[in-house]
Amino acid sequence: MAGLVQRNPRFSKLNDDDVRYFEGILGAKNVVQDEDKLVAANIDWMHKYKGSSRLLLQPKTTEQVSQILKYCDSRSLAVVPQGGNTGLVGGSVPVFDEVIVSLSSMNKIISFDKVSGILVCEAGCILENIISFLDNEGFIMPLDLGAKGSCQIGGNVSTNAGGLRLVRYGSLHGNVLGVEAVLANGTVLDMLKTLRKDNTGYDLKHLFIGSEGSLGIVTKVSILTPPKLSSVNVAFLACKDYSSCQKLLQEAKRKLGEILSAFEFLDGQSMNLVLNHLEGARNPLPTLHDYYVLIETTGSDESSDKQKLEAFLLGSMENELISDGVLAQDINQASSFWHLREGISEALMRAGAVYKYDLSIPVEQMYNLVEEMRSRLGNTANVIGYGHLGDSNLHLNISTPQYDDKILSQIEPFVYEWTSKHRGSISAEHGVGLMKANEIFYSKSGETVQLMASIKNLLDPNHILNPYKVLPRSLIS
Amino acid sequence: MAGLVQRNPRFSKLNDDDVRYFEGILGAKNVVQDEDKLVAANIDWMHKYKGSSRLLLQPKTTEQVSQILKYCDSRSLAVVPQGGNTGLVGGSVPVFDEVIVSLSSMNKIISFDKVSGILVCEAGCILENIISFLDNEGFIMPLDLGAKGSCQIGGNVSTNAGGLRLVRYGSLHGNVLGVEAVLANGTVLDMLKTLRKDNTGYDLKHLFIGSEGSLGIVTKVSILTPPKLSSVNVAFLACKDYSSCQKLLQEAKRKLGEILSAFEFLDGQSMNLVLNHLEGARNPLPTLHDYYVLIETTGSDESSDKQKLEAFLLGSMENELISDGVLAQDINQASSFWHLREGISEALMRAGAVYKYDLSIPVEQMYNLVEEMRSRLGNTANVIGYGHLGDSNLHLNISTPQYDDKILSQIEPFVYEWTSKHRGSISAEHGVGLMKANEIFYSKSGETVQLMASIKNLLDPNHILNPYKVLPRSLIS
Repeated sequence: MAGLVQRNPRFSKLNDDDVRYFEGILGAKNVVQDEDKLVAANIDWMHKYKGSSRLLLQPKTTEQVSQILKYCDSRSLAVVPQGGNTGLVGGSVPVFDEVIVSLSSMNKIISFDKVSGILVCEAGCILENIISFLDNEGFIMPLDLGAKGSCQIGGNVSTNAGGLRLVRYGSLHGNVLGVEAVLANGTVLDMLKTLRKDNTGYDLKHLFIGSEGSLGIVTKVSILTPPKLSSVNVAFLACKDYSSCQKLLQEAKRKLGEILSAFEFLDGQSMNLVLNHLEGARNPLPTLHDYYVLIETTGSDESSDKQKLEAFLLGSMENELISDGVLAQDINQASSFWHLREGISEALMRAGAVYKYDLSIPVEQMYNLVEEMRSRLGNTANVIGYGHLGDSNLHLNISTPQYDDKILSQIEPFVYEWTSKHRGSISAEHGVGLMKANEIFYSKSGETVQLMASIKNLLDPNHILNPYKVLPRSLIS
Repeated sequence: MAGLVQRNPRFSKLNDDDVRYFEGILGAKNVVQDEDKLVAANIDWMHKYKGSSRLLLQPKTTEQVSQILKYCDSRSLAVVPQGGNTGLVGGSVPVFDEVIVSLSSMNKIISFDKVSGILVCEAGCILENIISFLDNEGFIMPLDLGAKGSCQIGGNVSTNAGGLRLVRYGSLHGNVLGVEAVLANGTVLDMLKTLRKDNTGYDLKHLFIGSEGSLGIVTKVSILTPPKLSSVNVAFLACKDYSSCQKLLQEAKRKLGEILSAFEFLDGQSMNLVLNHLEGARNPLPTLHDYYVLIETTGSDESSDKQKLEAFLLGSMENELISDGVLAQDINQASSFWHLREGISEALMRAGAVYKYDLSIPVEQMYNLVEEMRSRLGNTANVIGYGHLGDSNLHLNISTPQYDDKILSQIEPFVYEWTSKHRGSISAEHGVGLMKANEIFYSKSGETVQLMASIKNLLDPNHILNPYKVLPRSLIS
């Protein structure tokens, strides 16, 4: 991928004085030059994007992040901020020799208020650790996703991660109450409010939610967490066609209403892939089907919730929206249903090369794209469709034995043009990164992208933060 | 108030050529110069802020708004955008002779998608009309507030209005999916997406949510609306002390969980005021109390919801968190409970002069401020406390026979200092407007306010949009 991009010659090359300076700030052991240790930070999770950074910095405090950036800005050293490095669009690895600033050592929970449910923590906290912490306190994270074991909250905020609970709790723009961020020139912006409402001036924290580290480095986050509700039910269902899945969603929104907490979709091809490539995966239904839906409800009343879900399932069987289905009898069975859905990414990785697209498309049209892609590619590739149906978010994945430019040229720009024509988004939740920086116009107007570039110039005039990414290279050079 | 501000001499004065130009764009009848008609647009709802504009423009299209702004920018004519003019901080009326751009004629609903619940409409739609429209379609607005009969959705978005349902549905930053806005130079930013998820670049619509018309004029809005749920219950309760109200809130969050849709608070003084000054108000309880709470639940299952609420109320009676209470038996009784809470603003208006403060303060400390203010002012004023307890939002109101600078000097800056000391916000939902432009530092750091000013300079370099407001006058001149 980096092959299509030129290194910006305005960036300096790292020298020994730079390294000594960083050692002075961080101590020698937090300035990593060891090549073996750099390998993992230079390459993304999918092994698709690979940089050649020679330096990984591990600050422990906001003040250190500030000193690092101030120095890099003055020296024109490019920087890539890195959290758990679980991104899917090449946003979290260097493209060339950028200095990697890892937030992993800033992993403390700072405070939790049990009255309001407001958590304040450092950016490097791993999502799963936060989830466990909150679970002990009787609360839950409004965000959950397959990569929770590695991804960090700072990266989640920086990419505006969506995930499995968005249908219930909404996006991070709604749930994040405050952010502390460091600008390219080292200025620390303290916007770390712990208030549900604060209308004093422009709400600038939103600039740092979803800007993929290109406007500043998020160092701390405050987030509103809902109380944990006692009753969780999970059903795994089969539908005879896509139209039934869609009708089932509409019914679920009405009939399950306030207790619906997830509505996930996978097609028969996704299921086959998972059954073939994911350890411990097994079909909870006696036969195979073409379409599956996972429904989760979360509420405060065990008996009435279960009754409501059962009535809904019975009604949907009678209306023939569901062909078969099973309601999890215990937490282990519920986990095994979720494992099928959450494990698709991993199964794809094991199956070979994969072209991943993360699209917002109106629910009615969503599956047409999967079918068109299938007929376009014929038997050269395995096209699978799954995703967050409740949010109109399709994960279109094309699995092939190995990467092949000929296949890529059949997929792109077709997939972007199709999405744009249907007024969708070419990135629902994965972000833009390196992968789609030049494709942003498929989803945003020229004037809007121009204003993004002006804001980039204002906040990071030397463009040292996460270069080559997010914005078209014609606008930022 | 304008007495403290100087008219910025860089702004031109309106001349006949300007009027002719506007008539050419809008037609003569949409260019209002009649003094009688200008009176209402020059003065705010509370009769506290009064400008002296000689021109009110009524565009019908985004293109007309664009032409107006482009012209005003080139001529250095200052502009105040105006919706329903229900603001409480002097944000929606001219300070001097600014040209008033009213959005009232842009009041069409553009589209509504019953599958996704996404509404697209023009900025001048009155909130109550949208609520009625959605009601017919089987959906509800995630936003509701006392001023709904006059306020417009564009103004709601521009001030990031909070209101009565925020505890359930969250803020407009979470619910608004798209915005169309016109910049000072006439550029139309089309960010009118109808997607629940879209991570392509910086999410700039958030700059226009809550910036009070100082960065651009919002002309269209797209918003996610939840399905209407069939079962709504309202209880009006009395508590013996503030601490019981607070504990009741914590219990309600746990026990009512996903069906809780409002948790409102008013003290005995608020109740007295309403009973004395608001038409049709009567105490639903047999005796008077010191503290009242209104709880609303909204869910999909009549019998189980009612059962749940009744069990919660019974338990709270037994625990002595509630001293008395009544559950509305029908929609008329529910409305009469809401009338008490929503009518406080109107009752205050009828009672004389009023100093209004809208504060976010951690729930534990919130009522201390009311009590401190009461002992500070003695019997010179009637201090009342009410608000959205579920969001930690206190409306502190000080009612006096007439405005009096001596009283004001006892209130301010004390109220801001107290709020700042308790890490609160000096504007939870009303915004900054003219009233608090110089007080913003009580809630935001110097670096953050400086960045706000830089963004103002970037988007509106001649500062024609809603001048003298939102940002400190020392930074914008």
